[in-house]
Amino acid sequence: MSKDKQFVSEITPQGEDFSRWYIDVIKKAELMDYSPVRGCIVFRPDGFEIWEHIKDAMDVRFRETGHRNAYFPMFIPESFFQKEKEHVEGFNPELPWVTEAGGEKLEERLAIRPTSETMIGHMYSKWIQSYRDLPVLINQWANVVRWEKRTLPFLRTSEFLWQEGHTAHETEEEAREETMKMLEVYREVIEDVLAIPVVVGEKTPSERFAGAVNTYSLEAMMRDGRAVQAGTSHYLGTKFAVAFDIKYLSRDNTLEYVHTTSWGTSTRLIGSLIMVHGDDRGLALPPKVAPTQVIMIPIGPPKTRDAVLARTDELYAELKKAGVRVKVDDRSDVSPGWKFNEYEMRGVPVRLELGPRDMENGVCVLVSRISGEKKVVQQSNLVDEINAMLAQVQQEMYDRAKSFMQENFYSVNTLDEMKALMEEKRGFTLAGWCGSEECEDKVKEVTGATSRNIPFKPSEEKSVCLCCGQPAKHTVVFARAY
Amino acid sequence: MSKDKQFVSEITPQGEDFSRWYIDVIKKAELMDYSPVRGCIVFRPDGFEIWEHIKDAMDVRFRETGHRNAYFPMFIPESFFQKEKEHVEGFNPELPWVTEAGGEKLEERLAIRPTSETMIGHMYSKWIQSYRDLPVLINQWANVVRWEKRTLPFLRTSEFLWQEGHTAHETEEEAREETMKMLEVYREVIEDVLAIPVVVGEKTPSERFAGAVNTYSLEAMMRDGRAVQAGTSHYLGTKFAVAFDIKYLSRDNTLEYVHTTSWGTSTRLIGSLIMVHGDDRGLALPPKVAPTQVIMIPIGPPKTRDAVLARTDELYAELKKAGVRVKVDDRSDVSPGWKFNEYEMRGVPVRLELGPRDMENGVCVLVSRISGEKKVVQQSNLVDEINAMLAQVQQEMYDRAKSFMQENFYSVNTLDEMKALMEEKRGFTLAGWCGSEECEDKVKEVTGATSRNIPFKPSEEKSVCLCCGQPAKHTVVFARAY
Repeated sequence: MSKDKQFVSEITPQGEDFSRWYIDVIKKAELMDYSPVRGCIVFRPDGFEIWEHIKDAMDVRFRETGHRNAYFPMFIPESFFQKEKEHVEGFNPELPWVTEAGGEKLEERLAIRPTSETMIGHMYSKWIQSYRDLPVLINQWANVVRWEKRTLPFLRTSEFLWQEGHTAHETEEEAREETMKMLEVYREVIEDVLAIPVVVGEKTPSERFAGAVNTYSLEAMMRDGRAVQAGTSHYLGTKFAVAFDIKYLSRDNTLEYVHTTSWGTSTRLIGSLIMVHGDDRGLALPPKVAPTQVIMIPIGPPKTRDAVLARTDELYAELKKAGVRVKVDDRSDVSPGWKFNEYEMRGVPVRLELGPRDMENGVCVLVSRISGEKKVVQQSNLVDEINAMLAQVQQEMYDRAKSFMQENFYSVNTLDEMKALMEEKRGFTLAGWCGSEECEDKVKEVTGATSRNIPFKPSEEKSVCLCCGQPAKHTVVFARAY
Repeated sequence: MSKDKQFVSEITPQGEDFSRWYIDVIKKAELMDYSPVRGCIVFRPDGFEIWEHIKDAMDVRFRETGHRNAYFPMFIPESFFQKEKEHVEGFNPELPWVTEAGGEKLEERLAIRPTSETMIGHMYSKWIQSYRDLPVLINQWANVVRWEKRTLPFLRTSEFLWQEGHTAHETEEEAREETMKMLEVYREVIEDVLAIPVVVGEKTPSERFAGAVNTYSLEAMMRDGRAVQAGTSHYLGTKFAVAFDIKYLSRDNTLEYVHTTSWGTSTRLIGSLIMVHGDDRGLALPPKVAPTQVIMIPIGPPKTRDAVLARTDELYAELKKAGVRVKVDDRSDVSPGWKFNEYEMRGVPVRLELGPRDMENGVCVLVSRISGEKKVVQQSNLVDEINAMLAQVQQEMYDRAKSFMQENFYSVNTLDEMKALMEEKRGFTLAGWCGSEECEDKVKEVTGATSRNIPFKPSEEKSVCLCCGQPAKHTVVFARAY
């Protein structure tokens, strides 16, 4: 085996064991490491920087839609959870409890937030008096904790990072509009920035957020055919307003409960990104969130090394100035081939090669991580060429993921059909559903697939429940999920 | 009392009760609110946005100096604290403990991080093998918890937000260089961005970070003369390397301990900002971190209202496009005078007034929050005029704070002198110190002042210890501190 192939050889092929492939890749590419605390990971710089780019893309859109960031305490008094019945039932089993602090036993246990509806609801009840105080449009970037039994780096960890939007409105209509608006913001970031196509729709009642009236989700398909819920947006009605007494004096001089929403996305998105785009060569990162967008690799014999390096540095400075996230690998103790494999493994979207002959011709070679396409370009036009190739790679990644999703999206009519599909090759299945929880449970029991959502734009409307054969109330996407 | 004065009337004058002034201002300006959890506050949007601007100013400089952000778990196993003796002694009394999670009692208690040397040290021992892996230059933005007995919003809260840099190096020299480099980054941000002059120097041994070899600090003077430690940078030697077994194979093929540093600044900076710049009219925010830099207030009678508003909107769009953080207050139910007072109270650096006569003349009026200076400027040149006035306000705020610090900086020779000064008017005092902890303790006991630091550039070198009269080893700044 050639030494150059070492990077690839250490990664389990996806087809052999997708879970092992995933762990191999994120460890090898130094995105994360396990920590000494069960279920908690370390986000290493390359992993964390992906999150920072996601955060920036979200944040600018939150601000454009009128939201502001704030920060609320992570400790939540036990009594707060008791105020909303469904909420406490949903989250209680996953809470970590602080029982001692500053050398003393606490009078009331403090949970570490799994989400902040209760704390924020409590504060909103103090801040909101009149319709003039509405809407309140606040977002929080924070760490949250859910003590999970089975964990998986990025996708399900005990502590994770996320944003949670919490808004309060005068009317149901306005709150529902907000719920849908933020769902669309998520769709835009996930599809346009992360290059991940999603199925947008409403969750069935059994899959709703604990305490929500309606939950909407965006579902992405991993390369093993399983689903990841990439983001959710909830219309909470007046449930939390009643629980936390958030009332306002209306325009008609009556006391009314506000209508609230909440919406969140998390570091799960990093995991989705990897499982949607990666391949047997390693990571593949969309240019818009890649920590390094372009890796420059000088090539050629030792005698031309200095000259090539000098020119590389000039071009580096140009790209850097133009805002490209670029790096030079000028190590002399490893071969160019080794470097090619390494940066493919790390998912760097574009490789730039520069050798002595390129120097003579005033050109360099760009190589796409996705298509493998090689393009000889003029150095004099490098910034434009790089930006064009980055845009092209971004688009190719979306298109590739979209095709994959379409190819693995099946329409089924019976439980047997779905079962066969799930056993042979996991993917998304579209099926009719009568609306009963009983049928939903049976689907899960028999096929391992859960209802992902009721898509807004199904490719077809199904008329019969796959389980009981009764008329279908909804057309639902079912899939095995992370 | 005129209604326009209401904003001011609700704020206790600084001279009457500085602590009450502080709380009045931060509540009234909606920077924070108390939370239902003891010692924890809510950072409301205007308070949090100040932190976001501080964060951005720090972050760009961290990156320029080669650092990358990462994220480590907030839970720290109890056994980790035991590994560094001084560290555990320093932090143990302030830790909150998670003892139950997911419905079960934990086998080992988990502390919530008060700082992350231990967790990060543990990870570094896994990542660092050879000199080729060094230096490791990582920063973390995170929430931390120290269960404080007496709390004060922003300045001392149980949960707070901060950044903590943690670096590992081959040599002591390199680590010491890093320690000083980051101290200088802090000085630059605090003086140039927050407009807060600081005294930079080394902490005395008794005031060192728990586990540090040397601790350096930046000390700022509040308007009541008391000190706030605005940031610290520590050279940790090989103490944490030994405790966590962080070794590397050196260039000489020997196994060596790394030399580490850590450095941090926190949301205390928000509190300092308020106490350094605020006055009896309310907040005063330096333009570089003000959530709103310019408030536009249309004036004049109802009949010209629409025309004035239309022109205001055009100018607003121009400023917005130029990157100015600008807002229009077009409420018709409160008077311009009310608005003037409100935005002075909120600390908005520049007010722009536009009335019908200004419209005719193609001008508008700019008013500085600090000097009260009014300037009539051409609308055609508005962006430049605004930027010039923002720069001027920024400079004036620094100069004003600098003068205040100089006026309240005393050179003293005896304990009695210092005692009298501290009783009459709190300020910074420069005094000689023999180097004994006994004398340091006595100063505190008698005067209430603690040693802030041994300044790098004292205005004079003192020769005699103010306490015992023996020859001075160091010239020290003493002050009462938050």
